[in-house]
Amino acid sequence: MYDFSDITRPTLLLNENIARANLRRMAQNARRNTVRFRPHFKTHQSVLIGGWFREEGVQHITASSVEMAAYFARHGWQEITLAFTANLRQRAELAELAAQVHLGVLVESAEAVQALDAALDGYAAAWVKIDSGAGRTGIAWQDFAAALAVAKAVQHSRHLRLAGLLTHAGHTYRAASTDTILQIFHESVERMNSVRDALAAEGLDELEISVGDTPGCTLAPAYGRLEEIRPGNFILYDSQMLRLGVCSFADVAAVAACPVVALHPHRGEAVIYGGAVHLSTDRLTDDAGRTIYGLVCLPDPARGWSEPIPGAYVSRLSQEHGIVHLPQQALAALHIGDLLCIVPAHACLTVAALGIYRTLAGAVISTMHCA
Amino acid sequence: MYDFSDITRPTLLLNENIARANLRRMAQNARRNTVRFRPHFKTHQSVLIGGWFREEGVQHITASSVEMAAYFARHGWQEITLAFTANLRQRAELAELAAQVHLGVLVESAEAVQALDAALDGYAAAWVKIDSGAGRTGIAWQDFAAALAVAKAVQHSRHLRLAGLLTHAGHTYRAASTDTILQIFHESVERMNSVRDALAAEGLDELEISVGDTPGCTLAPAYGRLEEIRPGNFILYDSQMLRLGVCSFADVAAVAACPVVALHPHRGEAVIYGGAVHLSTDRLTDDAGRTIYGLVCLPDPARGWSEPIPGAYVSRLSQEHGIVHLPQQALAALHIGDLLCIVPAHACLTVAALGIYRTLAGAVISTMHCA
Repeated sequence: MYDFSDITRPTLLLNENIARANLRRMAQNARRNTVRFRPHFKTHQSVLIGGWFREEGVQHITASSVEMAAYFARHGWQEITLAFTANLRQRAELAELAAQVHLGVLVESAEAVQALDAALDGYAAAWVKIDSGAGRTGIAWQDFAAALAVAKAVQHSRHLRLAGLLTHAGHTYRAASTDTILQIFHESVERMNSVRDALAAEGLDELEISVGDTPGCTLAPAYGRLEEIRPGNFILYDSQMLRLGVCSFADVAAVAACPVVALHPHRGEAVIYGGAVHLSTDRLTDDAGRTIYGLVCLPDPARGWSEPIPGAYVSRLSQEHGIVHLPQQALAALHIGDLLCIVPAHACLTVAALGIYRTLAGAVISTMHCA
Repeated sequence: MYDFSDITRPTLLLNENIARANLRRMAQNARRNTVRFRPHFKTHQSVLIGGWFREEGVQHITASSVEMAAYFARHGWQEITLAFTANLRQRAELAELAAQVHLGVLVESAEAVQALDAALDGYAAAWVKIDSGAGRTGIAWQDFAAALAVAKAVQHSRHLRLAGLLTHAGHTYRAASTDTILQIFHESVERMNSVRDALAAEGLDELEISVGDTPGCTLAPAYGRLEEIRPGNFILYDSQMLRLGVCSFADVAAVAACPVVALHPHRGEAVIYGGAVHLSTDRLTDDAGRTIYGLVCLPDPARGWSEPIPGAYVSRLSQEHGIVHLPQQALAALHIGDLLCIVPAHACLTVAALGIYRTLAGAVISTMHCA
């Protein structure tokens, strides 16, 4: 039986068994597809949880910032891709990292390649960042000439080794169905291969393809022609992944346990201590078209937390307050001082905001935010 | 001339002169209205900036969490209202605080009053939290009976002293015009007085009224019948306050300086290192109906930062990336490695996310997040 009586403030509850099962499943997906599994550690952000990945044989990881890469490097990780287009203002820090570990960097302009090359003493692997349709950043996949120019700049550099082509098909997060997710995933892989083929025709062969995203990497039965996957969110999953049909509720490995501070039966609402600074204001649109900041469960001494309360959701957030819409029956059973367990809209941001986990057994797991 | 060459990552730039001028103006507003100025420190969250308030004669402050109250208590603040409905799961911490400082707590149920009373050794001031229209939390202002019941519970307690009625008219943040802000502010004060009068008729007299919010406290030429104001955001202001017409651009005291990592002229966009974990995903709807995450300025060695670039805004955020929409001319003048200065949508959350300031002169100012 789990005991939550010592939880006094918004607390990130982690079910280690579920997280480890999620990890095993994704590692199996990678093995089955014979691709390198380079999980993105921006979701869990924890050296201790990183250890669970090591137990699964993971040696290659992805980080989203220089600070995150340095944190994991300090704790023995040697193969780190910094999956964020190289920030030239941090070139000194990048050079320092490259001297310590096998660093991978992302480039999408010849200008950045040259600036990095001049800054590095040691060597780094360079991935040409391709926009395969998400429209965030990277060279548009259709623009073979631009990809070629950047790849050639890497070839002509002294300190960068051309590793391949990298993309994050983040538009799967905006898909309306699992079919659309699969379609986007496969289309993205095809587009990456068209860039690879175009560059191979120019003599740049043996380029690898690295792809992101949890929705595609979870759902696709076969990945197709690629060498590396970098999903991150799958270790925890969240309300967004539930809504997309990427995971089932049994796969959700973390919730934010938040104290109830007020009840408003006439409004059909409870107020929790758990606001924007705890959950983040990231949100999703549910099937009814409502903006929601999280699903709502009850603590459960046997399992950790219950299934989501049907019809309940976090409807508004301010800095410290969360407003939870609840059906009358659920509201009537609630008392001031109770806990509600919120399935975050976006787990990565809730981890970053809360900065520390508490396992169901009551153990504290730190992250880079409190190391 | 200011030098920004050492800024390598998303950095909260503070113009101390503007912040001090904002502070002086609000302190004058309070003096002119002969009300107690109890500024909310949840915006700046910094002991050093707190010192500027002391220089203006401020002794009473507001905090939004037990941790924040404890941080300021450790640094010599003795008069602290914790303006968040008392979280009973933290009653031991509240009791500890009440033993150290003159603590004010918020109550909105007799149940909470009794639980707090049982937990306290020392004494605390209790404010009955009233919802004067914002619909976040508190006793609905029309419900005199409920307010009376809670006030009586406080009177019957041993460790709580009834201080008054407190509200945060946060619906001013959703107002469409400054006229509406003023109307909401005055209506809120009237409603609070109607509760006060109703309780006075029951023998509970000499209750004070305490009100929040930066929009109303900035704009109202005269406050009317109240004893205390608790604005916080005014020390920095932000894009939301600009859009509401609460401040002018010359009053904005902080921006997030973010490195440009990629340019997408065909899309009319630049990508900055500055995402949800730096700016927060709080946002506003601009006059054109667009969701925006911040206005965009250029660093200016003479003034700190320029006026906002007309037509430019942060249009999307992911964990580390910000996508900035820019008119072609502004985009054409930009280089990878340049800085853009983002006026946050909501300064309080950006301070919480970045956790540290850099003054224009290059000095570092810490907050409770890095103390």
